[in-house]
Amino acid sequence: MSFSPLIRQLIDALRILPGVGQKTAQRMALQMLERDRSGGQRLAQALARAMDEVGYCRQCRTLCEEELCPQCADPRRDDTLLCIVQSPVDVFAVEQTGFRGRYFVLKGHLSPLDGLGPEAIGIPELLGRVAEGSFSEAILATNPTVEGEATAHYIAQLLIPKGLTLSRIAHGVPLGGELDLVDGGTLAHALAGRKTITL
Amino acid sequence: MSFSPLIRQLIDALRILPGVGQKTAQRMALQMLERDRSGGQRLAQALARAMDEVGYCRQCRTLCEEELCPQCADPRRDDTLLCIVQSPVDVFAVEQTGFRGRYFVLKGHLSPLDGLGPEAIGIPELLGRVAEGSFSEAILATNPTVEGEATAHYIAQLLIPKGLTLSRIAHGVPLGGELDLVDGGTLAHALAGRKTITL
Repeated sequence: MSFSPLIRQLIDALRILPGVGQKTAQRMALQMLERDRSGGQRLAQALARAMDEVGYCRQCRTLCEEELCPQCADPRRDDTLLCIVQSPVDVFAVEQTGFRGRYFVLKGHLSPLDGLGPEAIGIPELLGRVAEGSFSEAILATNPTVEGEATAHYIAQLLIPKGLTLSRIAHGVPLGGELDLVDGGTLAHALAGRKTITL
Repeated sequence: MSFSPLIRQLIDALRILPGVGQKTAQRMALQMLERDRSGGQRLAQALARAMDEVGYCRQCRTLCEEELCPQCADPRRDDTLLCIVQSPVDVFAVEQTGFRGRYFVLKGHLSPLDGLGPEAIGIPELLGRVAEGSFSEAILATNPTVEGEATAHYIAQLLIPKGLTLSRIAHGVPLGGELDLVDGGTLAHALAGRKTITL
């Protein structure tokens, strides 16, 4: 006993959010009930509409409620450059860098042990998109993990024969860090990919 | 540009949650959209109902959707013991200890500088509740802060003349900690409130 049924339901429902456990869910529920009911109502409406109406962009397969996402609908972007990412949140991350080409969003990475083969992650759709587009270069921006590398390698093998330049985002030390905190694998990549300094 | 309008609205709405910034809100929104739409729909419904229907218990003034909260409606609890807390979440915390008396929930603590006097935090309702009840002891479980102590002191001055035994929750070192990490004020309280060991 303690919380009334509606509050308990709200706390349970909040726990589907990533990183939200029992204590955080309680704090969220009570704070909204005590201090921000209109915010809570707005959140309820935004959630209901988004869950109901958001689908996938016909062209790049990112999440959006229109047929084409803002990136695919924009006529001013570079149609020769395709950036291939693993998930919709990566589109946002790459956009922040100022990239202004086109995107294709895979459904995750290849993972044969989990039964995720080329069809499951959308490789046929990627080939279709490349065939109908006028790309000269495809940037493989899958995650720098074993699975992401394997997926990038697989896609490169498919697309290079089609006459595209394939590139992989650079590995190296992140900006603003300290060298002794960087793992050995990353540092090895940073050394191997060193650049000559020109004055 | 980047996220479509509905997704952007959802991310903005999620930011009303305590401790949720832009990055976390993005992750929450995209995770629900990609992996758990039915959970998102359930959350939307639970939110809408709770924001709309949850009010305050007529007797103890905690949050609940019925006229009486589960604690006030339970006939088996100790009607001679009243626990006075600062907010509904404290009711939950005290319940966890196994306390089975009654509650009264203040609306925060006295804070003259913010214009929060006795009326604003519900002291008149507390006096009414004490007058109509049959309490012999009131436990002051306001927070162990300057404001919480002041509020407890103020309430004690009002209720002791009415023939009630007033008590304050004990201050001391928390269980499971290390002594040198405890602040001086707490340790001073722990020393002053030391208990004789009996074999």
